[in-house]
Amino acid sequence: MAEVIDIDDPDDQRVADFRDLNNADRRPDLPGGKGLVIAEGTVVVERMLASRFTPFALFGVAKRYEQLAEQLVGVDIPYYRASADVMAQVVGFHLNRGVLAGAYRPRELSADEVLAQARTVAVLEGVNDHENIGSIFRNAAGLGADAVLFGDRCSDPLYRRAVRVSMGHVLRVPFAQLPPFPQGLDILRDNGFQIIALTPNPKADTLAAAMTGDKVALLLGAEGPGLTEDTMRASDIRARIPMTPGTDSLNVATAAAMAFYERVRAQ
Amino acid sequence: MAEVIDIDDPDDQRVADFRDLNNADRRPDLPGGKGLVIAEGTVVVERMLASRFTPFALFGVAKRYEQLAEQLVGVDIPYYRASADVMAQVVGFHLNRGVLAGAYRPRELSADEVLAQARTVAVLEGVNDHENIGSIFRNAAGLGADAVLFGDRCSDPLYRRAVRVSMGHVLRVPFAQLPPFPQGLDILRDNGFQIIALTPNPKADTLAAAMTGDKVALLLGAEGPGLTEDTMRASDIRARIPMTPGTDSLNVATAAAMAFYERVRAQ
Repeated sequence: MAEVIDIDDPDDQRVADFRDLNNADRRPDLPGGKGLVIAEGTVVVERMLASRFTPFALFGVAKRYEQLAEQLVGVDIPYYRASADVMAQVVGFHLNRGVLAGAYRPRELSADEVLAQARTVAVLEGVNDHENIGSIFRNAAGLGADAVLFGDRCSDPLYRRAVRVSMGHVLRVPFAQLPPFPQGLDILRDNGFQIIALTPNPKADTLAAAMTGDKVALLLGAEGPGLTEDTMRASDIRARIPMTPGTDSLNVATAAAMAFYERVRAQ
Repeated sequence: MAEVIDIDDPDDQRVADFRDLNNADRRPDLPGGKGLVIAEGTVVVERMLASRFTPFALFGVAKRYEQLAEQLVGVDIPYYRASADVMAQVVGFHLNRGVLAGAYRPRELSADEVLAQARTVAVLEGVNDHENIGSIFRNAAGLGADAVLFGDRCSDPLYRRAVRVSMGHVLRVPFAQLPPFPQGLDILRDNGFQIIALTPNPKADTLAAAMTGDKVALLLGAEGPGLTEDTMRASDIRARIPMTPGTDSLNVATAAAMAFYERVRAQ
């Protein structure tokens, strides 16, 4: 069981890793900062406890400690307990869901490790919105996609907002960074993946018709610019989601969900 | 062409309908207030101009006026032009996308009107998150769903945030309010719709197998609580999106997108 340590003074140095989470200059969750991974709320903290991101400490109110009692059995780290007010003063805002867990970044997985057991993966290029990245992980977890691979110019999936929006699934769904594109895509081919580039181009095959491989890698670009032409050319096939002319392309996380859904729709 | 009226004084009463949009007490876009419909940014303003929500005025910077020149041909309403600073002082924030259009609420459409030409509709129960409602309209527009019907306890789709997140499609995709559930669902059946209740229940048929009607109405509940049992019972069939056990249910707008996609996937 986590050892309870009461924190009455908002300046207490023992909770320094949970301080001022919204202050960009001091944010511990930025790679330029301490690179900590922060889980917020009981659901996400629970997922962190069950992940390879082993927390070094918890910080929360008494009620959340009670709610997590079962998950904390055998967990030998401090639970810094504070009132909601003291917690808000430390964290810098009130909407902190009453409990936080902090973890150091473990070793990054390699693309080969991540691909070894996978059948359906998303491969992102230029996706730099943390909310979209979080949603992609949530949708991957929900719809049984096995991994997320990052290409050029993507944002950090372990940023606090991405962790929260993913509902903690960024801590569970394996991910890895690929070498620069388009050469970086060779690893997918070497691992037997059909590389499918999603495009709004109405001349492309439908996703349903294009997705024929036993193992598929779904290339997704950012909303707006989409995939670069070089990356498109390096794919095996271009596929479209049937869209109504004159509308905007779908949100990238929604497009990913549709591709994941296409893989499991009849199961 | 819209007549240009320069606004130099942030207190100018002529832009009162665009004032303090973030101030809950005075918000002009709340039904409890003036019930105005506010479009933000060139794309959404353009969609408003092409919709049944006829704007009474525009408020923006010079650059946006130029960008909208083509769309404003024949539009006989004032364009209140201001500097970005004056505009931010009036509106109450800087992230206003440089142009706003205001419209009064037109007559509400009836469910029968909305259903007359429709083949695929979403029917919402208890969906009270403006962002989710906006996303459902965006996904409906993109994937060719014809209308959205509101059941009990849903939020106002014309709220500013919903309009923005929908990318203006809430102004284009028809919607109507249904009478209280479960009796309110009879209108769907009377109009020849198969009523499909989406559920995470693993014993339900897959969406792909259940959706057999020529006209389908997709019942969606809020994330978390889902549909009420009474509403479930009043449906023709219960259908599930194949989900991985132990994950959270999908976001309601993502679930809607998947159902819309299922209707068009082979097109």
